[in-house]
Amino acid sequence: MDFEPYIRDIENFPKPGVVFKDITPLLKDAKALTAACQTLCDMIVKHDIDKVVGVDSRGFIFAPLIASKLNAGFVPVRKKGKLPYTTISESYELEYGEDTLEIHTDAIQKGEKVLVHDDVLATGGTASAVCKLVEKLGGEVVQCNFLIHLTFLNGSNKLNGYDIKALLEY
Amino acid sequence: MDFEPYIRDIENFPKPGVVFKDITPLLKDAKALTAACQTLCDMIVKHDIDKVVGVDSRGFIFAPLIASKLNAGFVPVRKKGKLPYTTISESYELEYGEDTLEIHTDAIQKGEKVLVHDDVLATGGTASAVCKLVEKLGGEVVQCNFLIHLTFLNGSNKLNGYDIKALLEY
Repeated sequence: MDFEPYIRDIENFPKPGVVFKDITPLLKDAKALTAACQTLCDMIVKHDIDKVVGVDSRGFIFAPLIASKLNAGFVPVRKKGKLPYTTISESYELEYGEDTLEIHTDAIQKGEKVLVHDDVLATGGTASAVCKLVEKLGGEVVQCNFLIHLTFLNGSNKLNGYDIKALLEY
Repeated sequence: MDFEPYIRDIENFPKPGVVFKDITPLLKDAKALTAACQTLCDMIVKHDIDKVVGVDSRGFIFAPLIASKLNAGFVPVRKKGKLPYTTISESYELEYGEDTLEIHTDAIQKGEKVLVHDDVLATGGTASAVCKLVEKLGGEVVQCNFLIHLTFLNGSNKLNGYDIKALLEY
């Protein structure tokens, strides 16, 4: 299935000069939604995934779908203060300032095989922080997958050594 | 399947005196994750759902799963300013102040049958605002379903006339 027609360019969002890739036309189409999940799963060579980690909030859309398809559990990574139980955290630099992500300490067991998912790979700061959180808990990051990889932002440089896959590249 | 053992009580979160129902033990268990989606789908009498609307951000976890299972599309409702395309909005009262939710104007076509999903039904303010957004676009709310219904907060009063279902009631 060609997913490109289901991605809408929104100019000057969220700020002037940025072209935002809007995935909602893909999400609202039943066939495209299910096919996108299937295609992401087909890109995983080792299918014995224990946990799929999704990043708040657009990563929450496909990560549980992929998890259910792979017979794995779903683990949310969220911004600081949002998760209710004991957490560990990882900070990463933004264009201006920094942000902090958290994961529950009991989310992943040592040795578990983990797939990291987010909707977009941009500069790679978020995904890199998520990989560090998974590894701090003793998990093995088997792959990072994304709906969209904005290759011109060189996010893969921050994910050196990880298997990176995406539905669409720009 | 008995889902109750997969819900963890967190006292004094997000503020003193509140007991938060933590769903992450359910999410991280592959069998419970898939069974919860199946049980929510089994509660829908009319299965010809066109769109499943999920509320940012924990509603994003199960709404796409349900949508894919029902062969429907997924539509996100988000806080003000988060959706990139043209939106309509609906404000609702919080304990202190108010909040505003938005939906894309092209998310739902007139006459489409819609399932509204969120993780928790508490005071009903959020779900009620979501139903209004769906109806403003001409959609028909067939059911509102939730993982957890906190019945003591009387949220169903704000959802009078809607079919309300939940995996667990407290």
